[in-house]
Formats: sequence, structure tokens, C-alpha cells
Amino acid sequence: MLTKIADQRDIDFVLYEQLGIESLLTSKKYQDFNKKMFDMVLKEAKNISVKEFLPACAECDKVGVTFKDNMVTVPDCLRKPHHLLFKGEWGALTEDPEYGGQGLPFTIAQAAMEYITAANQILVSYIWLGHGAGKMIELSGTQKQKDLFVEKLYTGEWGGSMLLTEPEAGSDVGALTTSAKKMDDGTYELTGNKIFITNGEQNLTDNIIHPVLARIEGAPQGTKGISLFIVPKIWVNDDGSLGEHNDVLCTGVEEKMGLHGSPTCSLSLGSRGKCRGLLLGEANKGMEIMFHMMNEVRLEVGTQGFTSGSLAYLCALDHAKQRRQGRSIEKVGDEEAAQVPIIQHPDVRRMLLRMKSYVEGMRSLIYYTAFCMDKKELADNDEERDRQSKLVEILTPVVKAYSTEKGFDVCVEAMQVLGGYGYTREYPVEQILRDCKIASIYEGSNGIQAMDFLGRKLFGNKGKALDCLVKEMKECVAVAKEHKAIKDLATDVEKAVDKLEEICRNTMGVIMSRQMPSAFASAHPLLDVTGDVIVAWMHLWRATLAQTRLDSKDRIFYQGKITTAQFFIKTILPVAMGKLDAVTYEENPAVIMEEGAF
Amino acid sequence: MLTKIADQRDIDFVLYEQLGIESLLTSKKYQDFNKKMFDMVLKEAKNISVKEFLPACAECDKVGVTFKDNMVTVPDCLRKPHHLLFKGEWGALTEDPEYGGQGLPFTIAQAAMEYITAANQILVSYIWLGHGAGKMIELSGTQKQKDLFVEKLYTGEWGGSMLLTEPEAGSDVGALTTSAKKMDDGTYELTGNKIFITNGEQNLTDNIIHPVLARIEGAPQGTKGISLFIVPKIWVNDDGSLGEHNDVLCTGVEEKMGLHGSPTCSLSLGSRGKCRGLLLGEANKGMEIMFHMMNEVRLEVGTQGFTSGSLAYLCALDHAKQRRQGRSIEKVGDEEAAQVPIIQHPDVRRMLLRMKSYVEGMRSLIYYTAFCMDKKELADNDEERDRQSKLVEILTPVVKAYSTEKGFDVCVEAMQVLGGYGYTREYPVEQILRDCKIASIYEGSNGIQAMDFLGRKLFGNKGKALDCLVKEMKECVAVAKEHKAIKDLATDVEKAVDKLEEICRNTMGVIMSRQMPSAFASAHPLLDVTGDVIVAWMHLWRATLAQTRLDSKDRIFYQGKITTAQFFIKTILPVAMGKLDAVTYEENPAVIMEEGAF
Repeated sequence: MLTKIADQRDIDFVLYEQLGIESLLTSKKYQDFNKKMFDMVLKEAKNISVKEFLPACAECDKVGVTFKDNMVTVPDCLRKPHHLLFKGEWGALTEDPEYGGQGLPFTIAQAAMEYITAANQILVSYIWLGHGAGKMIELSGTQKQKDLFVEKLYTGEWGGSMLLTEPEAGSDVGALTTSAKKMDDGTYELTGNKIFITNGEQNLTDNIIHPVLARIEGAPQGTKGISLFIVPKIWVNDDGSLGEHNDVLCTGVEEKMGLHGSPTCSLSLGSRGKCRGLLLGEANKGMEIMFHMMNEVRLEVGTQGFTSGSLAYLCALDHAKQRRQGRSIEKVGDEEAAQVPIIQHPDVRRMLLRMKSYVEGMRSLIYYTAFCMDKKELADNDEERDRQSKLVEILTPVVKAYSTEKGFDVCVEAMQVLGGYGYTREYPVEQILRDCKIASIYEGSNGIQAMDFLGRKLFGNKGKALDCLVKEMKECVAVAKEHKAIKDLATDVEKAVDKLEEICRNTMGVIMSRQMPSAFASAHPLLDVTGDVIVAWMHLWRATLAQTRLDSKDRIFYQGKITTAQFFIKTILPVAMGKLDAVTYEENPAVIMEEGAF
Repeated sequence: MLTKIADQRDIDFVLYEQLGIESLLTSKKYQDFNKKMFDMVLKEAKNISVKEFLPACAECDKVGVTFKDNMVTVPDCLRKPHHLLFKGEWGALTEDPEYGGQGLPFTIAQAAMEYITAANQILVSYIWLGHGAGKMIELSGTQKQKDLFVEKLYTGEWGGSMLLTEPEAGSDVGALTTSAKKMDDGTYELTGNKIFITNGEQNLTDNIIHPVLARIEGAPQGTKGISLFIVPKIWVNDDGSLGEHNDVLCTGVEEKMGLHGSPTCSLSLGSRGKCRGLLLGEANKGMEIMFHMMNEVRLEVGTQGFTSGSLAYLCALDHAKQRRQGRSIEKVGDEEAAQVPIIQHPDVRRMLLRMKSYVEGMRSLIYYTAFCMDKKELADNDEERDRQSKLVEILTPVVKAYSTEKGFDVCVEAMQVLGGYGYTREYPVEQILRDCKIASIYEGSNGIQAMDFLGRKLFGNKGKALDCLVKEMKECVAVAKEHKAIKDLATDVEKAVDKLEEICRNTMGVIMSRQMPSAFASAHPLLDVTGDVIVAWMHLWRATLAQTRLDSKDRIFYQGKITTAQFFIKTILPVAMGKLDAVTYEENPAVIMEEGAF
């Protein structure tokens, strides 16, 4: 029923027209690549996703994982796609070929992952977790650790996980109680209980490498006393052979709203015997090591939210073109007029264009962020490196929070377009919506993203990251203003950027005042509206390019970009202006409310 | 885990302080009632809901319905609650005692149904459908039809349904093809297929009475040729005894996202033998008869959305008070500070107060609408009757669409407060969210509500219903302005009311222009923002009352009403002002977008 999983034409538009990623090819790092190779990677990502990964998606949901005798069985339908996924080297697109990676730019990897994530988020969770574990070891491990683990994680021969959360330590990582004791042989013995561990136990791979946050006996309280350990499910001997089973016991899996094919496990370490681990990096520096990979994970989860929305939009669009119901609005009184496809009804068009404008705006935002990561890597001077780094920093919480929320909203609107059909399991939107919902919650809930945005990215940076962002937006506005046909849109975006900047600076000021809690009560609304303004900027940028291409044979496509930009800037951006008005500096009612009055 | 299913104190506040429903007791109709009796009904509604109806709710979800050999088995756990529900006469609270009703005012029934709906929406579906079928027969049936069916439907001895939708006729009812042929004995023989029929087949009641929309052979196309028939699952003889099985065959049930305990059936009429029906009311007047009960159904579905939100909020509040995580924001650097309940975190407070402000605003809106229905019934002159009738008319699509959307949004936010726990089936929010989602889709999708609002309620009424509504809002503003402490809030609401009125009138004007499709592309945004402004009005009304009661022993409660009103008016109403700016009169981009560009 579902065959188009992503809008290839729009992806190409962002990559080659908006961002101009061919510029990366002039660098030494990518000298062995060319556009044809990029295209081939993307074509293959699309083909294998539609043919091999997508079919397993609904099946995963239906079958789910089973838990018995401390063992987890994942749906059988995952086996072949998982094999193909890693055999095709999709597990580490941007990594060093020495460790089984493809050495591609982040932006191309982002596009490839859009196809794969749209087709099957469960499969992608194996990529993320294996890659995350491998990356931490690559960045912080000893040479021996790297040799033993990294390639096997990147190639998917072994699975990864991330043992962070405990019953009393979720958002508050510093409260964790899992402890580690140094043994005579230099390894550590771990004891503790972890919960909500994605893919913490599964029967797809021969081994699982668990990065574990724990506190070495005697280490300080809080985050300052947390270390990171490598805890293999099956011990890995120095020569790389597998040794004895480690004491990592799966004590249960969660029954969840979605992502039924991915086990969310409770794990007990050292409850029955010895749980051995290797210290990764320095003692008490576990949080720093983990944060190295946090940015990437947050972009990945943002991608999850975004692709859910994109896929749901494509389902709704397909349905709206097929489904005939009602007459044209001009003939609404004429009962003998023919039924028309519902895409002709103004309210359905509004829903579709709203979805499309969010989806395309998010695509540009996320790809742009990946492009900043590439430019940071390739920067030939500190100033440029710092600028791109600041852009990535400030954009990361926006990508994570905004894309997971708007992606979900798009799923909800898509279900509305499908009507009663959308609420049934016969159509894919129902599953997409359920699977997507976790994205606003995990990998740093969106409330945590908002605190990160206001506290670290705006205030902690003394506004410098904001300066970089505003500069980028204003440059785009200046270019757009030169085109008469979209000057009006440019002016709207300019006003929004000015107002956003003012409100951000004011809120940063409030942090130093007695009203600090009120500033943090506004952190999420501020992050949300920042997303709106950035997406408006992205649409202005798109419309500016499209404006110059209206004479081409792709006129309908380019005119569509302009109309989509108009829709976002004329009907969504005014609401964002209202949101900016709503960010209050005085005492926020939410802060002064007495607890007994809730 | 869940014991508080509704906020009794707030319900009482709305009934007795905001609306002053004791005024109904002075009427002749309610002379046999007193406040004590009202309170008793509500107390019992709450008790039986918590004790008997709630426990079956999660079980319904888990067990679901089963379909085999054209028969539907509902979860066993429904049996006792269903029995108690109807034995306690909850099925027809407002109906004539002659037919098994309790003869209560709509407003009291609304409050009782809030408890019952919060506890178990599946059970409530039996009330709605039995009541709806009974009501149509009571209003349009012959005396014999009334005698045979009404009481048994109101008392729940028999179940009801509503056979409207067909594969090619959903929102477009006029396209239906089920046909009816008159037989020599005056009954009709029906042939056709219906889908999405809630409780269309079940094993809870001895009989099911299906109201069926069908076209008598030779009748006009479209809605003008539709008649309504009473089709019993088992034929009812003239003496009331049960006769032979009628040919209403259940051919399948949908697998849905939620409401697993309520079967959504496909029914085939006359496919194997004879499907006999009785004409209800006049031929070709089926739509009119059905519309008689439509308003009530829409308020019921609005209540479904609202109570989902209310219940989800109470879960989130409970969790936020219990769950300890992180330090107080003032001690955020001090890792040795104690963990605090998350209700102390500004972002969690923002989410909770946002939810609370929507929930309480919706409660006031829905109860107020029910109160208008009571006042319409009791009106002693045409002018008053017409005024109350117009208020009910214009408010009905707002209640249906706004409450189902905001109720769902509150569920989503509640899940966010619960974090990872919220995504699991161990906590009730996950089910509430899934169950709730259908409410924006069925009983006239919210897009249909928006067309009804703009086309019939605003434009069709020549703005008179709008006049009535604006007058009510302005009266409240005038009173509020007399209180210095909330004058500022009153001014904000006044500006919003003025702007809403202007935008509504302008949009009505556009309907007569060439840009008519653009007006309908704005219908849903307009309906949505009307809901925002009405809820702001309700909060101003609440705050005005609370302002005079701050000296009472309930100070915290009343101060909470004022703070909640401040939150809504200062942080949500500004966004609504932005929404009003976004309602465009010129060509809406959604209308001009070329189909190939989507």
C-alpha cells in the first residue's frame, strides 16, 4: 500500500540546490567522491529501504518481541533486513573505512538515513546503538579496546546499547546508584539495575556491547562521579574470541504504545554472579564521554520524528488523491454533481499543505544542521570551525525537540485526512503515530532540550551562538528581498527574526534575575517558537531559489515551493509571532501557582 | 493506580458558582428536585464510576473484542458494569420517567456523564447509541414504535447503533446506496453494506435496534432521498415478543488504535435472506430525523475528548507529585541537594498548568452549553428560546471539534510529564491517548464541524448566533472590568472578542465572493481560534467569581482559578491573537496550490 517513503525530488532540491553540497567535493577529505557516487548511495538507500526494510515494519509491530526465561526474541522478519542493512555498510556511513565505515559526509548520510528511518525505525535503532557504542570507544578507548570492539559494532556483527537510566535516575542521571569496584586484573565488577534499555537484550547478534554509566566506589556524588564502562554481554578475550557469559540479566521488557519490534529492557548487573566491565576513558569522566555522542543521537531522534511526519504526510497525500467523497465546493448544493477526490476540498488542502510545509521545513533544518557539521569538519581556520560548531550547538536541541513534536503533529493531522480508515491498523498512519510518540520523550526529553537551549546554548554561550544563527537568517532575508515577488515574505521573516532575537536576549537577562524560574518556565515555548522562525527562514531560502527557476520544465515543482513558503509564512508564522508575545518575563503563573491549587 | 477520575471540586464550582444551576429548581419542570438530590446523583455517579466502571477499562483494552462466525464477543468484564449502568438508570438521565428516564436537567446529566465517561468510554458508547436510537424513535416514531422500542433502549435492555457510513459514503452521506423496498405488509426490505458501525454486533444485550439510513427505490439522489428505518437484529412482534433473526450479518470488525472493547463492525443487510425494517417518520426525511439527535451526539463526543484530557491531566498531576527527580531550579548546581518531586520544576508546572487551563476551560464551555439547552427548554418566551437555541447551535461544533483536539493534546502533554513511563502500558495515559484519538474523526469529522460552523452557524444564521455569543462574552467582560485585580485580563479578553468578531464577519463576507474556497480553507482555523477565545472568556468568568471569594477558607482553590485564568489569558490567548492574524481573506495558498506540487 505504501511505496513512496520519502520525497526524492525534495531531498535532491535540499542537497544540491539549497545547500549546494557539491562544494564539499572540493575538499581533500572527499576528493575520492563525486556527485554520481553520492547519487548512487542515495538511490541504493531508497531501493533497499522500499524493497527490504519497509515490508518488515508492519510485521514488527504485529509480532512484537517476546520475553521468556530472561531471553528476548525479536520478530523473525527483522533477521534478513538486519543482515542486509549491515552487509550494505549502512551502519556507519560517515565513519572511517578502517573501522568498516563509508567515510561519507554527514549531509549525504543524513539523506540516506532519511530513507532507511522512514522505512523501518526498529532497524535504525540497531544502527544508532551500535554506532553510538562504537563511537564512544573510538573516541575514548585504548587502542586495544578500539581493536576489539569498534569495527564489530560499526558493521553490526555485534549490537550496542546504552545503560543510563535507572528507576530513580532518568532525566536526573547524577542520581544513579550502579556501582563499580576495581578488581586486581584492572577490570571492574559492576552491580546495579538499569531500566528502559533499548535493545538491551535481543537474539539478532552474537554479542551485545553495553556502555554502562556507573559510579566507582568512593567517587563523588552527582554527575562528577560517574564513569563509563564497556560491559559485553559475552566477555571478549584479548584475542577477540568470545569468552564466558557476563552477568547481565534481562529481567523484563516493557509493553509499549509502539516500536513493538524493539525490546525496551530492564537489566540487572551482577545479581547472580560477576558482571565484569572495562573502564572507558578516565574515571569520573563518563558524562563527558557520553556527551560526545549526545549531539549525534539527538539529531538522529529528530530525524525519527521528522521521517514519521514525512511518511505520514505521503500516506495522507496518497489517500487524498484516491479517495472520492463529496462534491467540489463550488457545486456543494448540486447533489447530482460527481464525487471528487478529497484533495480538492479546501480543508483537506489546508491540512496537506500544513503537513507539507512542516515536513519540508524540517528536512531543510535537519540537512542544514548536518551540513554545518560537515563544514565544521572541513573548516580551515578556527573562526569558521567555531562558527559552524556554534550553529550545530544551538540547532541541535531545536532539531531534537521541534522535529519530534511537529513530526508527531503531522502524524495526527495525517490520521485526520484518512478519517476512520486512519484509526484502523489497515492503514500505516496508526502505527507511524504510535511509533513516533516516544521521540519527544527519550534521549533527553524535550523539556531537557529546552533547558539545554536556554541555559547552555543561549545563556552559557553569552549569546554568541544566537549571533551566528541570526546572522545566517538575516543574510537569507537580504537575498530574498532582492526578489520583488517574495519581498513581502522576506519582510515577514525579518520581523520574526528581529522579534525572536529580542525575546531570546530578554529571556537570557531574566536568568540572572530573581525571576529565573519564570525564564525556565518559558524555555520550552521559546525553543518551540525558535523552531517556527527557523523553519520560516528555511522556506524563505527555498522560495528564493525556486523564484529563479520558474522558467524551467519543473515549473510546477518550483511554484509549489513558493506556495508552500507562502502558506508557512502567511498562516503559521503569524501564530509564531503570537507565541513570542506569550513568552512572559514577569512572574510566570506556572511558577507562582500554589501546589495545592493544581 | 488511578482513583481520582474527575475534579469534583471544580465540577461543583462550575455547576453551582459559575452557572448557578440552582436557578433551574424554580421552574415547574424541576419542582420535584432539590440541590440535595442533584448532589446525590453526582455522588453516586462518581462512586459507581470509580468502583465499578473504571476497573473494566484497562481490561477492555487488553482483552478486546473477538470476531468469529459472524458473531462478536465483547470482553466479559463489561457484563457487570453494563448491567449496573442501566440498572442504575444512567442510560437516559434527562429522559421522561415514563420511558425509563430520570428527568434530570441537561447540566446535571452532563456532570454525571463526566464521571462515567472518564471511567469507561466503552460503556458510555452503549448509553449513547441506545439513547440515540431511542430518542429518534421517541421524536419521530408512531405510538406503536415508541411502545415497542423506546423504554427498552433507554433502560439498556436492548442495544442501539447507527447505520450511516458505507464504503463510498462517509462524510458524504448523500452518496449512500443501501436501498429499501416496500413490502405488502407495510414493512421494508433492505439491501446494502454498512461499515464503521460502533457496537453494530455484540453479545451484551438480547437485541440490537439498528437505525438505518437507506434510499427507498425511486427516491431522489443525494441527501433528499434518504429515509430512516428501524431494523431490529431480532424481529420484534407487535406484542413485544421477539420473533425471528433478521438478516443483519456482521462480516468483520476493525482492528483499531484504541477503544478495543467496542466493536466497530461491517454489516451486510439482506445478503443471505430478508432484512426487514420499519420506516421511521416520513419517507425521504431521514436526514432531518437524524439531525435531531446530532447535536446531542456531538456534545457527547466533545465530552469524550474533554474527559480524556481531564483524566490524563489528573494522572500527570499525580505522577508529578510523586515522582522525585532532579534538584530545585535554584539549587541546580548543587549535586548534593535532595531530589524534589518534579512538580517543582518550572517546565513541568508549565505543562500541568497548560493542561489544567484547557481542561477547566473545556469543562466550563461544555457545561455552559448544556445549561443553554436547559434554559432553552425552560424558556417562557420565544425570544429567550431563540437566543438559547442560537447559543447551543453555534457552540455545538466548537464543543465537538475543540474539545476533541485539545483533549487529545492534553493526553499528549500528560504522556510527556510521565516521561518513559507514560509510553508504557503500565500507566493509563497511553490507553487514554489511543482511545481518545477517534473523537476528532467520528460523528462528523472536525473538518465537517468547521464547515458547519462557518457555513451554517455563522453565515447561514446571518451572523445572529454570533451576535448572541458576542453579547454573552461582552457582558462577562463588563463585570470583570469592575474588579481592579483582573481588569487587565478583562481587557485582553475584550480585545480578543472584538478581533474574533471582526474576523468572523469578514470571513462570512468572503463566502459570497469569488474567494469562497479560501474562506472554507480558513474554516477550521477559525473554529479553533473561536474555541480559544471562548475558553479565555470562561476563564475570565471563573476568575471574576474567584476574585470575590479569596477571603473564604478555600483561598488556595480560588487563587488557583485566578492564576489559571492568568496563565490562559497571558500565555495562550496571545497565540490565539496570532491565529486570528493568520486567517487570510485573500487567496489561501492551500487553495491555489497545484495538485502536482503537493
